[in-house]
Amino acid sequence: MSGGRSALERDERWARVALSYLVEPKHGPTLRVVADEGGVAALAAIRERRAAGAGEVYVRVPGLDLEALAAAVRAAGLRVLVPGDAEWPTQLDRLSAPPYCLYVRSGTDVAALTERSVAVVGSRAASEYGLRVAAELGEGLAERGWTVVSGAAFGIDAAAHRGALAADGATVAVLACGLDRAYPRAHERLIRAVAATGAVVGEVPPGAEPLRGRFLARNRLIAVLARATVVVEAGLRSGSLSTAREARDHLLPVGAVPGPVTSTTSAGCHELVRETDAVLVTDVADVVELAGRIGEGLGPARRPEALPSDALDPTEYAVWAAAPVRRWFPPERLAAASGTDPARLPAALAVLEVLGLLEQSDGRWRKAAPPAGRDGERRGRERAWTNG
Amino acid sequence: MSGGRSALERDERWARVALSYLVEPKHGPTLRVVADEGGVAALAAIRERRAAGAGEVYVRVPGLDLEALAAAVRAAGLRVLVPGDAEWPTQLDRLSAPPYCLYVRSGTDVAALTERSVAVVGSRAASEYGLRVAAELGEGLAERGWTVVSGAAFGIDAAAHRGALAADGATVAVLACGLDRAYPRAHERLIRAVAATGAVVGEVPPGAEPLRGRFLARNRLIAVLARATVVVEAGLRSGSLSTAREARDHLLPVGAVPGPVTSTTSAGCHELVRETDAVLVTDVADVVELAGRIGEGLGPARRPEALPSDALDPTEYAVWAAAPVRRWFPPERLAAASGTDPARLPAALAVLEVLGLLEQSDGRWRKAAPPAGRDGERRGRERAWTNG
Repeated sequence: MSGGRSALERDERWARVALSYLVEPKHGPTLRVVADEGGVAALAAIRERRAAGAGEVYVRVPGLDLEALAAAVRAAGLRVLVPGDAEWPTQLDRLSAPPYCLYVRSGTDVAALTERSVAVVGSRAASEYGLRVAAELGEGLAERGWTVVSGAAFGIDAAAHRGALAADGATVAVLACGLDRAYPRAHERLIRAVAATGAVVGEVPPGAEPLRGRFLARNRLIAVLARATVVVEAGLRSGSLSTAREARDHLLPVGAVPGPVTSTTSAGCHELVRETDAVLVTDVADVVELAGRIGEGLGPARRPEALPSDALDPTEYAVWAAAPVRRWFPPERLAAASGTDPARLPAALAVLEVLGLLEQSDGRWRKAAPPAGRDGERRGRERAWTNG
Repeated sequence: MSGGRSALERDERWARVALSYLVEPKHGPTLRVVADEGGVAALAAIRERRAAGAGEVYVRVPGLDLEALAAAVRAAGLRVLVPGDAEWPTQLDRLSAPPYCLYVRSGTDVAALTERSVAVVGSRAASEYGLRVAAELGEGLAERGWTVVSGAAFGIDAAAHRGALAADGATVAVLACGLDRAYPRAHERLIRAVAATGAVVGEVPPGAEPLRGRFLARNRLIAVLARATVVVEAGLRSGSLSTAREARDHLLPVGAVPGPVTSTTSAGCHELVRETDAVLVTDVADVVELAGRIGEGLGPARRPEALPSDALDPTEYAVWAAAPVRRWFPPERLAAASGTDPARLPAALAVLEVLGLLEQSDGRWRKAAPPAGRDGERRGRERAWTNG
């Protein structure tokens, strides 16, 4: 037993597995030794009770059974990634506190999967509106070949994953517990579906409970695995705001979806836009623009529907605007009503007639009816005639 | 008749009334003469057919009857303000194309009324949500002593006016037609109520129709009369976006209320936030902050509801988070579960017990139930235990 333990503990991969069991994510003293001397050395220091850090690095030593842990990893069908593996997502190296190792449940290359990805996160207590927007973003991103990264939580996270799955797209769930379990349990099927086509990943070993501190640590993984983080709905205390903060801290763009100001589940999103450099995003094109390289995914600017009157010069416009709808005006009245130089009136009338915007009868003029069947024509006309 | 006409036309105030009849708002050539030589001289130049500008400055001369216009002004109960009057709102002098004169229906000093004011504008085709937000902003601004400036249009404008009236506050309606009429006609009573407690103002003379060009011109008056402009709801073609543009062009702050991304009536607001320096505003405090002088109206930053756990240090927090709800853990198990140095555990447990966050029984520990009757306690606990 002791020999077996030693063999595993001298292997960098399994030493890191042991570390992930012994200390919580983001344990500074341990991470510093790992960075300087590697996981095997860090584990040996703990074994020999000369580790950096205080008593908490020893508190789980009695419970460590690395053979059993390795068996549990295998039994759960997990792979263990460590820095240097081809599949290691190098974005994780941006973290000041990277995971000791990354547990993966997937048949796919995780580095490739997350290379072009967006984190879509938000409130568990989401509104119907938020769920719809998250699902649409998940689906739209998947359709455009982007991987959706999220946390498999109730609400926004699940809607985003499901949207991506609905579009046969790739999605990655980052869990705060051991990957031998599903959390939340109600999402067992969802998590299985994510693993089947994308990946389920995490930094704590099989058997680890989803403690709050692990959720907060997990959020930094969601943020840096993606090129940008979008918060769809968030109350002022939502954990998804910490994901946004992690993204910002790592100089990754953050988007926030607005919602009704009367909705507490949008308050966190509005705060992000007001108080940080988060960008207001309204649809998948906005999100792709946020996450994409310069120029990639840049759609045309939003333009209002064109109206024929857009093409008019100011004089033509004034004449057209002043023309009545039912009555007929002689030219001199049209000039007076619109405040137009009578000398410029004939040219303007000619243009307006050619464009089908005015019609004449016996030398008198009125607005022409818009082409029949034009969508929303009545509203368009009303708008154009009054305030717009 | 000719003598009477001459007397009025030699009076700066009435000469400007005549100009407001003869030429449209923002007529550059006329405005330049008015700025250099005054309204009397500009009118005389038109009379003598040596005016700057083309034929459009003469087209309404045959229809000009200044005595009749003056009688109409008096009959409608209007006052005429010109630059130099004590009541002239000097904000109007910021405009490159100021009104020739300002028609006022009010018993109140318009300069005082607009000194501390916010323009609240938006779509005519507003949603129920937008109407509610506009009414709340109108009411909240009025309660805080701010005057609400708007355009008396259907939808957002009317809701904002009505909100201010509901709070017995002052509100100013800027019309695009002569003030002898109400536009829209359905708002006749609203406009009368605005005039009774605040003011109805405009730059075109009695009898003038609400032509489209006048609406666009009117929007610059709304923008500069106020210290800030807030767009509550706006489609991508909404005229209220031109009001926002005027405010921006005059270096006045612009706010936009977000809404569901699924609502076309919020698309213009979202564009303002995305593409301009418009500030996302969610409530009256945000609006007052936008419009107020530095420090005025600055409320406390939005803070989530405080939880007892906010006061904990990381060790205490980890211990509390790892403690079970129903079962009881001995200290060593609590240390292992939370990854805490056992030497630091007693101090943490003492703090958590004093704060009422953990309870013990026979030396074993679990989370304490929150104080009975605390609002939303169940949700608070659930949140704290998992993702938050």
